[in-house]
Amino acid sequence: MKQTFEKKELKKKSENLADWYTDVVLKAQLADYSPVPGAMVIRPYGYAIWEKVQGIMDGYMKAAGLENAYFPLFIPHSLLEKEKAHVEGFSPELAIVTIGGGEKLKDPLVVRPTSETIMYEMYKKWIHSWRDLPVLINQWNNVIRWEKRTYLFLRTMEFLWHEAHTAHETEKEAVAMCLTAQEWYRKIYEEYYAIPAYLGTKSKSEKFAGAKDTYTVELLMPDGKVLQGATSHNLAQNFSVPFEIAFQNREGGRDFVWQTSYAITTRSIGALVLVHGDDNGLVVPPMIAPTQVVVMPILKKDADSELLFAYCGEIKEALDNAGIRSKLDKREEPSVGRRFNEWEVKGIPMRFEIGGKEFADHTVTIARRDTGEKITVDRKDLLPTVEKLLKTIQKSLYDKAVAHLKANTTDASTFDEFEGVMKTTRGFIRAFWCEEASCEAAIKEKTKANTRCLEQGAEAGKGICVHCGKPATHRWLFGQSY
Amino acid sequence: MKQTFEKKELKKKSENLADWYTDVVLKAQLADYSPVPGAMVIRPYGYAIWEKVQGIMDGYMKAAGLENAYFPLFIPHSLLEKEKAHVEGFSPELAIVTIGGGEKLKDPLVVRPTSETIMYEMYKKWIHSWRDLPVLINQWNNVIRWEKRTYLFLRTMEFLWHEAHTAHETEKEAVAMCLTAQEWYRKIYEEYYAIPAYLGTKSKSEKFAGAKDTYTVELLMPDGKVLQGATSHNLAQNFSVPFEIAFQNREGGRDFVWQTSYAITTRSIGALVLVHGDDNGLVVPPMIAPTQVVVMPILKKDADSELLFAYCGEIKEALDNAGIRSKLDKREEPSVGRRFNEWEVKGIPMRFEIGGKEFADHTVTIARRDTGEKITVDRKDLLPTVEKLLKTIQKSLYDKAVAHLKANTTDASTFDEFEGVMKTTRGFIRAFWCEEASCEAAIKEKTKANTRCLEQGAEAGKGICVHCGKPATHRWLFGQSY
Repeated sequence: MKQTFEKKELKKKSENLADWYTDVVLKAQLADYSPVPGAMVIRPYGYAIWEKVQGIMDGYMKAAGLENAYFPLFIPHSLLEKEKAHVEGFSPELAIVTIGGGEKLKDPLVVRPTSETIMYEMYKKWIHSWRDLPVLINQWNNVIRWEKRTYLFLRTMEFLWHEAHTAHETEKEAVAMCLTAQEWYRKIYEEYYAIPAYLGTKSKSEKFAGAKDTYTVELLMPDGKVLQGATSHNLAQNFSVPFEIAFQNREGGRDFVWQTSYAITTRSIGALVLVHGDDNGLVVPPMIAPTQVVVMPILKKDADSELLFAYCGEIKEALDNAGIRSKLDKREEPSVGRRFNEWEVKGIPMRFEIGGKEFADHTVTIARRDTGEKITVDRKDLLPTVEKLLKTIQKSLYDKAVAHLKANTTDASTFDEFEGVMKTTRGFIRAFWCEEASCEAAIKEKTKANTRCLEQGAEAGKGICVHCGKPATHRWLFGQSY
Repeated sequence: MKQTFEKKELKKKSENLADWYTDVVLKAQLADYSPVPGAMVIRPYGYAIWEKVQGIMDGYMKAAGLENAYFPLFIPHSLLEKEKAHVEGFSPELAIVTIGGGEKLKDPLVVRPTSETIMYEMYKKWIHSWRDLPVLINQWNNVIRWEKRTYLFLRTMEFLWHEAHTAHETEKEAVAMCLTAQEWYRKIYEEYYAIPAYLGTKSKSEKFAGAKDTYTVELLMPDGKVLQGATSHNLAQNFSVPFEIAFQNREGGRDFVWQTSYAITTRSIGALVLVHGDDNGLVVPPMIAPTQVVVMPILKKDADSELLFAYCGEIKEALDNAGIRSKLDKREEPSVGRRFNEWEVKGIPMRFEIGGKEFADHTVTIARRDTGEKITVDRKDLLPTVEKLLKTIQKSLYDKAVAHLKANTTDASTFDEFEGVMKTTRGFIRAFWCEEASCEAAIKEKTKANTRCLEQGAEAGKGICVHCGKPATHRWLFGQSY
């Protein structure tokens, strides 16, 4: 879409993160508000980032033997009720269809908030023997969890995700699947989004409604709040028992399957904006960027455009052949300055400026979005330089985020310290905790921080709970969530 | 999913098409019934075919400059009402959310039956100048049109589709877009699904609710009924006026945009099953087949499996490298016979049988799904033979369907003839028609046939309406729809 770019001063990231965030999401044309409160429109640029995530995750899953399928949007309420914790967890945020085809429905239908129940009703029908296992099915779809206010990408009534649902012969296999999924999510965040993550397991009160354990990937945002990046759930036999998903095992006996579910959502795009953006707009890491380079011929008035355009076209073709994702911006309007601004707000990693001088010298001037740095390179050195720069930019954004994460992860041994951090920089706090839900609730009440996870590989120790002073065996990560 | 195949006799296609159809869809594991009447589950094998269609169509659209985006599932009813014909067309089949987050909604929300209205409300906001045009946006999503009964793929409450919505400066551009889309659909059906199509425009009463003209791709099914394959709509300014999607034109004046929308759905998979399937199950044309070849090592009892598996593995790898989509079936159970049967029901174009003899002779025995024919080829000739066979099978299926279409397209000059055909073979009937809606309705009432389309390039003539005898200028295609 060749939409006119509205040149208006962007809000400053340092002044008000939330205002800046919304401003950037709108001006970069990632998303927009819709006529339905709580629901947003994902515009082509935002959707192109989602398509990258889809491609990466779909690749991981298919290589591991998962297959895509599609289950109905509407779920009978009675199905949802089959797993007690599950229905309790989701009831407050359901959208319910009560009229269909002009008639009042006898059995109202829930618009899926997640698909465990409708899928497992089918699994019951499909699974009979250990030979039918594992079942490895994924869906790419939309889900609804009621919201009245929209916080673009980060909190919306409807979001897009994938939801994988697997069924196994043993719990060991199910746990292995959860850890594999967690590792896929880590890679998506760290290697593509350039956002470092803490990996761990959720506390009892923070885990998924219906899960035995929830594995999580936790991210730090620039204001010191933390975001749950993606989760995988060991559902154990919590659903297979009420849904009667039983199978004949290898010994001829009857067993219930061991299940997992896991998901990453369009919310991840919100993290991307928050972590890397700056006062000039979005900064998109090259690995996830739908467009990595914008090639801009810069024409002096009355100059001959034909040769310059041919030179730029040749460069664009060279980028295409090298698999570098680029756009050629030959527009006459708006002005060069406004178009620079437009691509900056969109966070395209590199801009090529190609004017009369570059054409004459057979060079290209490259401007980096992340640092603003400009270099002029010989045409013949262009491709290796660009390939190297893409890696450099990716690493530099990641390193910066790692430094921020390290600087904002604090070990707290007293509740004074804990409260002090939460009143100032926030971030992640590592502290001994007694693992009691009431204590966890009290900490949240006092500091807004809840448990984020018990880190993978966290060593057991002898400590006392940072809040209540009772014995504690592990340091947990705390933080204030988005 | 390694599901046990249930070996049961398939119903016969020749005896009862509808029963056979449902049986094949279920046994080939393309889809299944769900707990919600009217809604179905698309199983991995069915979804894999849909992913092929998505890949093809997404490729056509992206090459033409379309971008994907995502708009909300829920539409305020007031928006739907903005275009009169549109709301009238869709009102009888709406699903309506009246409860959200535990509260009764003041403004009930419609679950999208199609997205014109919610998208165009945004287009109004985004389009200001001719420089913003064309807008070329597509969505891959799910839509709901109320149904109580499920006819797998062919008639379901929920289906998957893409919906492209474009806005242009002139009607000429919009019409060109419609014709381009129609041509994409023709290619999908003819070149991939191997189903020949009639292309044309719909009559006033058969066009899309809100369109000025609807372009269609019409298909013949084995029982002589016809199926609308996909449609593109010239919306002209029917939506842009009520939605106030105005722009400053090149002359500085104010104009309303010219719009199109077009879609192909998961219903197309139903056509695939009906047209090519036989008494042994599905027959999938190679171009659209998720799996083109199944490689089956055939082990004699107590024979050494290792060398045979190595030979089969090497063949599978050669197929992978040649870009031929294959599966290696090394299962020990069920029996070879049942596994043959399983892949036959799934309509895999070719089966490789590789036993001790093939291994010793360095050959492969190939069984064609469409003809049942078997040939044994030297290992060194395998790839060229398979590549040729894939084309031969594709062409053979298409040619057979073309012959059926030709044999079942009848020119009728009297209503007696017309009625005679509809009472026997049905199929497409070409006949002069006066183009009056009341006459069209009377024909349908008497024969169950409605107008399918005015064929692209149909010559004008001087005729009399096959039904009412009034003057008519064109022969239209009639048929009984699914």
